[in-house]
Amino acid sequence: MAKKKEEININLSSFNDPKIVNDMSIKEMEALSSALREEIINKVAKNGGHLSASLGDVDLIVSLCHNFDFNNDKLLFDVGHQAYAYKLLTGRSLENLRKEGGTSGFQKRSESKYDVFESGHSSTAISAANGMAIVRDLKDEHFEIIAFVGDASIVNGLSFEGLNNASQGKHKIIIILNDNDMSINHPIGGMSKFFRKISTSSGYQSMKNGMSKFLDKTRLGHKILDFFTRFKNKIKHHLIPTTFFDNMGYTYIGPISGHNFKEMDKAFKRAKKSLKSVVIHVRTKKGKGYAPAENDVVGVWHGVPPFNVETGEFAPSKRSWADAYADELLEIMKDDKNILITPATVQGSKLNKIYNAYPKRCFDVGIAEEHAFVMAAGVALEGMHPIISMYSTFLQRGYDEILHDLARMNLSSTILVDHAGLVGADGETHQGIFDESLILNLPNTVVCFASCKNQIKDLLETANNYQEGVFAIRYPKDAIKDYESNEPALFGKWQYALKGDIKDTCIVSIGPLTYELKDLLNDRNNVSIIDAIYQKPMDEDKIIELLDYNRIIIYNPYSIKSGFAYSLLNRLNELGYKKEIIIKAVPDKFIEQASVTRQLEKLELTPKDILKIL
Amino acid sequence: MAKKKEEININLSSFNDPKIVNDMSIKEMEALSSALREEIINKVAKNGGHLSASLGDVDLIVSLCHNFDFNNDKLLFDVGHQAYAYKLLTGRSLENLRKEGGTSGFQKRSESKYDVFESGHSSTAISAANGMAIVRDLKDEHFEIIAFVGDASIVNGLSFEGLNNASQGKHKIIIILNDNDMSINHPIGGMSKFFRKISTSSGYQSMKNGMSKFLDKTRLGHKILDFFTRFKNKIKHHLIPTTFFDNMGYTYIGPISGHNFKEMDKAFKRAKKSLKSVVIHVRTKKGKGYAPAENDVVGVWHGVPPFNVETGEFAPSKRSWADAYADELLEIMKDDKNILITPATVQGSKLNKIYNAYPKRCFDVGIAEEHAFVMAAGVALEGMHPIISMYSTFLQRGYDEILHDLARMNLSSTILVDHAGLVGADGETHQGIFDESLILNLPNTVVCFASCKNQIKDLLETANNYQEGVFAIRYPKDAIKDYESNEPALFGKWQYALKGDIKDTCIVSIGPLTYELKDLLNDRNNVSIIDAIYQKPMDEDKIIELLDYNRIIIYNPYSIKSGFAYSLLNRLNELGYKKEIIIKAVPDKFIEQASVTRQLEKLELTPKDILKIL
Repeated sequence: MAKKKEEININLSSFNDPKIVNDMSIKEMEALSSALREEIINKVAKNGGHLSASLGDVDLIVSLCHNFDFNNDKLLFDVGHQAYAYKLLTGRSLENLRKEGGTSGFQKRSESKYDVFESGHSSTAISAANGMAIVRDLKDEHFEIIAFVGDASIVNGLSFEGLNNASQGKHKIIIILNDNDMSINHPIGGMSKFFRKISTSSGYQSMKNGMSKFLDKTRLGHKILDFFTRFKNKIKHHLIPTTFFDNMGYTYIGPISGHNFKEMDKAFKRAKKSLKSVVIHVRTKKGKGYAPAENDVVGVWHGVPPFNVETGEFAPSKRSWADAYADELLEIMKDDKNILITPATVQGSKLNKIYNAYPKRCFDVGIAEEHAFVMAAGVALEGMHPIISMYSTFLQRGYDEILHDLARMNLSSTILVDHAGLVGADGETHQGIFDESLILNLPNTVVCFASCKNQIKDLLETANNYQEGVFAIRYPKDAIKDYESNEPALFGKWQYALKGDIKDTCIVSIGPLTYELKDLLNDRNNVSIIDAIYQKPMDEDKIIELLDYNRIIIYNPYSIKSGFAYSLLNRLNELGYKKEIIIKAVPDKFIEQASVTRQLEKLELTPKDILKIL
Repeated sequence: MAKKKEEININLSSFNDPKIVNDMSIKEMEALSSALREEIINKVAKNGGHLSASLGDVDLIVSLCHNFDFNNDKLLFDVGHQAYAYKLLTGRSLENLRKEGGTSGFQKRSESKYDVFESGHSSTAISAANGMAIVRDLKDEHFEIIAFVGDASIVNGLSFEGLNNASQGKHKIIIILNDNDMSINHPIGGMSKFFRKISTSSGYQSMKNGMSKFLDKTRLGHKILDFFTRFKNKIKHHLIPTTFFDNMGYTYIGPISGHNFKEMDKAFKRAKKSLKSVVIHVRTKKGKGYAPAENDVVGVWHGVPPFNVETGEFAPSKRSWADAYADELLEIMKDDKNILITPATVQGSKLNKIYNAYPKRCFDVGIAEEHAFVMAAGVALEGMHPIISMYSTFLQRGYDEILHDLARMNLSSTILVDHAGLVGADGETHQGIFDESLILNLPNTVVCFASCKNQIKDLLETANNYQEGVFAIRYPKDAIKDYESNEPALFGKWQYALKGDIKDTCIVSIGPLTYELKDLLNDRNNVSIIDAIYQKPMDEDKIIELLDYNRIIIYNPYSIKSGFAYSLLNRLNELGYKKEIIIKAVPDKFIEQASVTRQLEKLELTPKDILKIL
């Protein structure tokens, strides 16, 4: 029997099997949701994490656990960072969320049998669900497969390809479209317009109102109106606008409120009965239950550092490389020649002030990496210089477009590769370790990485004036330090960060750790460090100088080996260098969540690890 | 003054500026279209090329040239192989179409000022047009930008991202949706269902019919019907279904016939007047004007070798590697454990017979490479073994999904990488030279390449039983030769194709050219050739043997260096090999159209070129 809300005692740590929610009353579910929200707020406040989306979908996840049995049915989150409530309901603690050895910020199969799929990059759930449904049906098994998709994620091309293919009636899936009216920044483009249209007034409603007004004026009109009312359902069937989803062959249900358990029960029951694939459009309130997140329109409460629950104040964060790049970029953009493009990471890459300063020349294209690069190609073809800002890990989605559209047509363009190298808490799915190899091994490209803050301006200005193709500037997620190099960063030139008197060992190093390494080696006179600011083109003069050393260590903790490290190894081989070459770069494996420092330690890639091999 | 059709004399070689079509009458345009079709048929019959789509859109291209001025307005083809008529109208001959030094099979800026964008991979035009429109408007320039998109291409995620972003009213573009009801094989999924729905009956029509039938039965009904008829337009406005495109914010015009010049004139005039972006849905008949292509339902007339115009017979083609793989795959697939997935290249990769034999386990997902890989992940997670067949060049679109979904989750899956290496006539956009590096440099992957036909079965069977991640089997577009190796192709093992008595030079070689090289070197007793069937994992035993040689040549004419070549170079460096290593692999540049043999010659990558450096 349902108890009154205030009497219901929820002990989240007792939750293990989500089946327990099956028998709950609405009051109990409301109490459960409140407890879940409280726990999410407190633990994210402590550990940092993805807050707004996780709070918004608590009721929806509770209702899904009420209506389905996830011991048989399968729930795929697309993006996984909406899954915190689901984690709590399936026996996982958020105590060490996103920490080394703690609960992952995304779905993870090794963590729980209730995680059947893993997504870090968005928009994969529909396609994966489609693949699963095909196998289920071939094996004649019977369970529901639910793809839980955000409105920010649905606008990505992959979601569309999935929607298009999964629409065939034969292999049923249920798509939950969690529409919280805000992507990482805000929803972009026609699709969001379309959702708002469905949500606020159906064609039937507007038709009914328009007709009533019109027909009310005449006697015949009254009769017709009366007729219409009597045959409402018949008419309604004809008049309710077929949505995009209907047209594609889905059973479309919605929009419903993702905070109304009755509505959700009804919708999920109908979805279970449907023989065709279903799209359920659920409106939720992002940040629900935590006022600062509810009222956030910029997106600062999307992914957050630790914060004070009472005041809503974030733990002070250090100035990052992204901050430093954004400051210089603000200057660069004064010139009318640039268009800035970024896919839903304006906030993450600290670009808000640039977007505010130059709204006509700044474009947030939503989670649409492929589009970002091809749009940039169009911009370049018409004679302006596009700057595409993108996290390294998301750039992987646009590899073909960098190759086929920008590099092949040799279009002058700058890519700001943020979050390059290891990224810490986001773990395997988000490491920024592949892009260097991807870009560097294409024709018509430049790749560089500043080690000191004074190089930022040089690199940005050089890129902005470069006329020969794609100019990629990589920078890490980390806090920026105060190191300054003595020389300007000239195109394609390396510089000594440390020059030993004796030509014994030369470390060819990349990025900010170069100067931390230098601090460790200042007293060595037999070790030199070259700051290889440009990974492509390489500095041929400095490479010739390298040939005199007995040992060359290529130190690149920001990339796998097949980019700069192998490229330099090849050049040294071509030049007949026969002495020792040691490569210290990120190995060929997926790297789990931990702090960046711990990740480097485990890979033996800290400056101290270099010291050890000297 | 318009002349009668039979009197109109069209001299295609006099065409240079498409403006000349501006003043043509319909009769003249009809004559021009006929002449264009005849020329396309004859030249494609001679050179091979893309026939069906090129014939289908001739009238549409003529009408575009009639209604727009491409000295100012811009026309972007998406995919470029629909542009033959446009090439002819802008002064280019199809005499040496797709041959070395001849006209490109796609749009190419270096070929004509009327080519403003280049696409080889599909679905780029909308995004590029959007980028161009932004710059046009910022510069306050005035011209129309037209993205010409096929119905096969619109289902790709990139098109959708473009549609979603370009729907903002501010930067007008015109999208021509050339709907010829056939993708490379046939249109896939919900989108095509949606197009057919728009085309065959509008909601208004069905409403009208349904209501008439119903209301006709009563007196009041008659009155209502009468009322309805009088206020038809008012009602119509409410009842015509808003399409996906309307909902996104476009002005939607269509469907119209792409063979009716009057209809097209009207639509283009309306599109020019629109202040918002426009989608014009144009229905065309693929293959129009050439009966065998018109009647083709399988897609054999999409991309064709030279053929006899009279009989419709193709020039005899040699048995290809794709044929050989398909034969073995047919056997492999007998086992119930496999799902075969391919994105619109069933015909190109000779998979028809497999699709016919196992229709429930074979999925053509259309031009949706990203979806193909994530769907495969879903299949693998449910315990079947997905086989994804894909051209090397198109695989680039799915790089992130191979990494993030298949390799990261370590899912047992086989990728058949067709058209690996140089591809000849398609040129820069389609070279299959990047995938090896992409896949090999990921964790949890295997990459291999058969050199002889007897290895095919071994590789497929090994892949099919592999439980540790992504197993990529690469093979070239070329004809297969009769070479057979003496040993079976065991997992991760290399074998000597030639073993010299003296350990002087060892060539570590990949793929079919290995045995052509062997034929040239049979009499040398100081040269060995290792057939490095597996590029990852490498054969450590054979690598140890390599250390005894004075010189190692890494010969990989099927990939850029950053895959296998650098990987072996790195291993040799780790093992302290200090003697000579020469890498002969595809260089870091975009390679223009020519025969594969000529491309290899120009890159000095033929077996004879290896002979020269011995």
